Amino acid sequence: MRQRHALIPTLREIPSDAEAASHKLMIRGGFIRPLAAGVYSYLPLGRKALRKLESIIREEMDRCGAQELLLPALQPAELWQQSGRHSLYGPELVRLRDRHDREFVLGPTHEEVVTALMRDSISSYRDLPMTLYQLQTKFRDERRPRFGLMRGREFLMKDAYSFDMDLGSLDRSYRAMYEAYHRIFTRCGLRFKAVEADAGAIGGEGETHEFMALAAIGEDTVVSCLSCSYAANLEKAEAQPIAGAATAASSAVPACESFPTPGLHTIDQLVGALNVKPEELIKTLVYVADGVPVAVAVRGDHEVNEVKLKQYLQAEAVSLADDDVIARAGGGPAGSIGPVGLSVKLLVDRDAARIASAIAGANKAERHLRFVVPGRDFPLNHTGDFRNVQEQDRCPRCGGELAFSRGIEIGHVFKLGTKYSDKLGLRLPDASGKPSPVIMGCYGIGVSRLLAAIVEQHHDERGIRWPAAVAPFHVHLVPVAAQDREQMKLAESLYERLSLIGVEVLLDDREERAGVKFKDADLIGIPIRIVIGKGAAAGLVEYKERDGDSSAELTADEAVERVMAALKAW
Amino acid sequence: MRQRHALIPTLREIPSDAEAASHKLMIRGGFIRPLAAGVYSYLPLGRKALRKLESIIREEMDRCGAQELLLPALQPAELWQQSGRHSLYGPELVRLRDRHDREFVLGPTHEEVVTALMRDSISSYRDLPMTLYQLQTKFRDERRPRFGLMRGREFLMKDAYSFDMDLGSLDRSYRAMYEAYHRIFTRCGLRFKAVEADAGAIGGEGETHEFMALAAIGEDTVVSCLSCSYAANLEKAEAQPIAGAATAASSAVPACESFPTPGLHTIDQLVGALNVKPEELIKTLVYVADGVPVAVAVRGDHEVNEVKLKQYLQAEAVSLADDDVIARAGGGPAGSIGPVGLSVKLLVDRDAARIASAIAGANKAERHLRFVVPGRDFPLNHTGDFRNVQEQDRCPRCGGELAFSRGIEIGHVFKLGTKYSDKLGLRLPDASGKPSPVIMGCYGIGVSRLLAAIVEQHHDERGIRWPAAVAPFHVHLVPVAAQDREQMKLAESLYERLSLIGVEVLLDDREERAGVKFKDADLIGIPIRIVIGKGAAAGLVEYKERDGDSSAELTADEAVERVMAALKAW
Repeated sequence: MRQRHALIPTLREIPSDAEAASHKLMIRGGFIRPLAAGVYSYLPLGRKALRKLESIIREEMDRCGAQELLLPALQPAELWQQSGRHSLYGPELVRLRDRHDREFVLGPTHEEVVTALMRDSISSYRDLPMTLYQLQTKFRDERRPRFGLMRGREFLMKDAYSFDMDLGSLDRSYRAMYEAYHRIFTRCGLRFKAVEADAGAIGGEGETHEFMALAAIGEDTVVSCLSCSYAANLEKAEAQPIAGAATAASSAVPACESFPTPGLHTIDQLVGALNVKPEELIKTLVYVADGVPVAVAVRGDHEVNEVKLKQYLQAEAVSLADDDVIARAGGGPAGSIGPVGLSVKLLVDRDAARIASAIAGANKAERHLRFVVPGRDFPLNHTGDFRNVQEQDRCPRCGGELAFSRGIEIGHVFKLGTKYSDKLGLRLPDASGKPSPVIMGCYGIGVSRLLAAIVEQHHDERGIRWPAAVAPFHVHLVPVAAQDREQMKLAESLYERLSLIGVEVLLDDREERAGVKFKDADLIGIPIRIVIGKGAAAGLVEYKERDGDSSAELTADEAVERVMAALKAW
Repeated sequence: MRQRHALIPTLREIPSDAEAASHKLMIRGGFIRPLAAGVYSYLPLGRKALRKLESIIREEMDRCGAQELLLPALQPAELWQQSGRHSLYGPELVRLRDRHDREFVLGPTHEEVVTALMRDSISSYRDLPMTLYQLQTKFRDERRPRFGLMRGREFLMKDAYSFDMDLGSLDRSYRAMYEAYHRIFTRCGLRFKAVEADAGAIGGEGETHEFMALAAIGEDTVVSCLSCSYAANLEKAEAQPIAGAATAASSAVPACESFPTPGLHTIDQLVGALNVKPEELIKTLVYVADGVPVAVAVRGDHEVNEVKLKQYLQAEAVSLADDDVIARAGGGPAGSIGPVGLSVKLLVDRDAARIASAIAGANKAERHLRFVVPGRDFPLNHTGDFRNVQEQDRCPRCGGELAFSRGIEIGHVFKLGTKYSDKLGLRLPDASGKPSPVIMGCYGIGVSRLLAAIVEQHHDERGIRWPAAVAPFHVHLVPVAAQDREQMKLAESLYERLSLIGVEVLLDDREERAGVKFKDADLIGIPIRIVIGKGAAAGLVEYKERDGDSSAELTADEAVERVMAALKAW
């Protein structure tokens, strides 16, 4: 492509609303432009990079036998009512009405549509296993779209769905996708981790992994063991129980007693005023789970993990209770809540349950209790892991050190089970003739987000450094002076030669100053740059890789050979 | 692909709501499934055929230097208000509100978005000419979606937009697209015609052509000359003025007089009762053009062409008037309208203006006028071509015979001019530094509709007959008995060999009866079929093309060679 008439509107200024490096650089490099919050146009360079991703994904999906289809964005609301997600999905679901006042949604995902399609299309267990996928535009009305392509309201996704008759077969389908994802993200040049994850709002049960591209801007926390392969997201991550003071016999602890603590409301205030450690305190919070209030006690230095609560309670929705509910649960004002004498179900984190003698809220204004003994002073009918892991925690598998990092969720594989088959009636007679629900899996890759994640990992202060496999072009040809006939002649001949052997070349034929051209080339980030300058008269060019520092003066023939060698190595 | 676990749900029954052959066959062959009226899922075979079309279109767009981008489906309503199309587009425009109550539309086309993008991206006339294109899903809430993919509410489109600084350059951009379209439709194996068309609702001015695939089911009428290359759609088609009786001097005609015609209201009734020819009658209709009533007079055997009216009046919208407006225009009841003594502007078709002595409505109940002389009895201030051409008409270019046929509009090229540049402020300083509006063109291909058009032209009573270039697979391997080891072994070896050399093969490894397999193969319509039956033991297979009648018994080697030869010939 010739740059003179190409739509590559590079910018020197940093867009004021852009925080993430990928967002800034893709705007500045002329890859994307915003049309509305979370809604982007892909300009030619962005579209080319996106198509590279699409090709890699298609190849790996086809390789593992998944079949491509294309499902509609417009979906009848009835399907979502049948699955129960019409109300559950909330304001993120884009809803609209057609001219006949029928309600539709714009698909944020396609479990309903594909399940109904399979229900109406297949008739025998012999047709399975089957995995279907599509590359398609999705819509999600995010509360807070941000970071450019990272969290958009209209975005490109690869979604896949597997259909099996038994769990062993599901496991094979799941593994095939899991491995395809590894190949895809590796080919994209990403540092990533597959982490154990929680089922979340998508429902269902069973195994699920998220694929996280490691990046400081990432909105997710990845917990991984430094000694073994254990890795999970923060929602799901577990730790070994803390070996604690629970060895002290509760009989040695005096009876629980109330004492005044005027003005002391936070853990920090208590720790400071009473000269105790936060792990000697019990923090109690009240939630409402599917409409029912429930209290949770954790150690003062721990944070409640709502996903684990939801899982334990098998609840659809869990949220913090308001002051009225808290006051009714404890009997005192909202700020005084503690585990002793509660009128609601009490969940106790296993580490809190092991404190020998704790300080806790007294359920009376401006007072706390001391010598609180779990099991003696409050019941331990519901103990479990209800907290987030922390940096000091130990790996649940091997006891090794847990490390925290930030990640961008670029993929997700999920054993759905029979949730959608049950709701939408996808049943097949099995070998014995008995109708059985089909077992499903779903598998997603955020393709536009993947593009952003690649840029997050591959850039420097001057611009993007595209991995060769996803770069919009392989070679950037830069004649220093487009009005110099000698230079342009050599540039044109290289352009022809390289294009002929299948190399994708961007030729900067603009009449711009050399400084502008080089700055743009750094910004755009094509892996190989060939500069045609004063040496052109002698048939010499400068060969340089965007990822390296050194450059070499070569003849045109040598440059072509170097390009071919580099392409082969990639 | 192996058919056993492929999602190819063929049907024996004809879907009850399907009228068009393409609709029936693509449903029956398992290519598509409806999700809602005018909303379809593409199953693996349909997706594959669609991707072939996408590739052909991309190749031809890239070949003529158009740059691919990807614009959002979600478009802020403000853009459409700026262009004036927000109200003009009517209920076909899908509208929705986001969580912040901001109005968006789902793009049925992207003139507004691309014009605003260019306005904000380019700064010099030197950047132009430029042509941008995308392959993208469009939404149009059709009043009457029908014929499957032919008229859908969600559909795939290739839209392109050209930007030039002068009319000569626009003409070159337009020609490049016009020629690319010829190459695309030719490669798709279509019989088509590029016909002159009217600007229509998209606005703008200047040259425009529609590409029509000829097919009986087509919703458009194509008028073409049997002697020269003239072709136009019915809205736009012209004819030579009819040489008529206007030679008779009006002075020889008696004074116009009223006579009773009780019960005679239609042209047919008048012709029958008065023993006159329809071409001696004048038919008068009243329209409302942008709120203003206007009358149109045509011969009794002619039909008013509303597009020509609109063009003449430069009106945005034209529709038939209601009875009140008609009565006010004529002075008598609505059914009695005639051209004499009207109180509104009167447009007279040039053929009606040439009648020597006519019969026409009297603007009085149950009466008509005779001896009506155009120009004497009613004014000829506005004469022109205001009617549809008819089969007896003569070519406006060469006087040859005009033939009528039906067509499916598969593409459209359009010189937009500065309509959108003016409305959205896309201006660039020209060479002299003076800001000038950029001149645009727009170019569309209905990709999903194209698929339907191909099937309309390529099928027989047994199923589809895909042209090789767009067939989902090249070769259909059909072992007659999948449980026969000899047959399956030969089939598998052919599958491997053909796949290795890049041939796309569908292998029917299902344990179905031979009759079922053959019926499905005919229905699906892969161009080459290789049947592996009893001859397998001797290494023989049956080679057959879907488009031909004969079959040949060949060795496996010969069959591979025949496939390669056929592929080379395509």
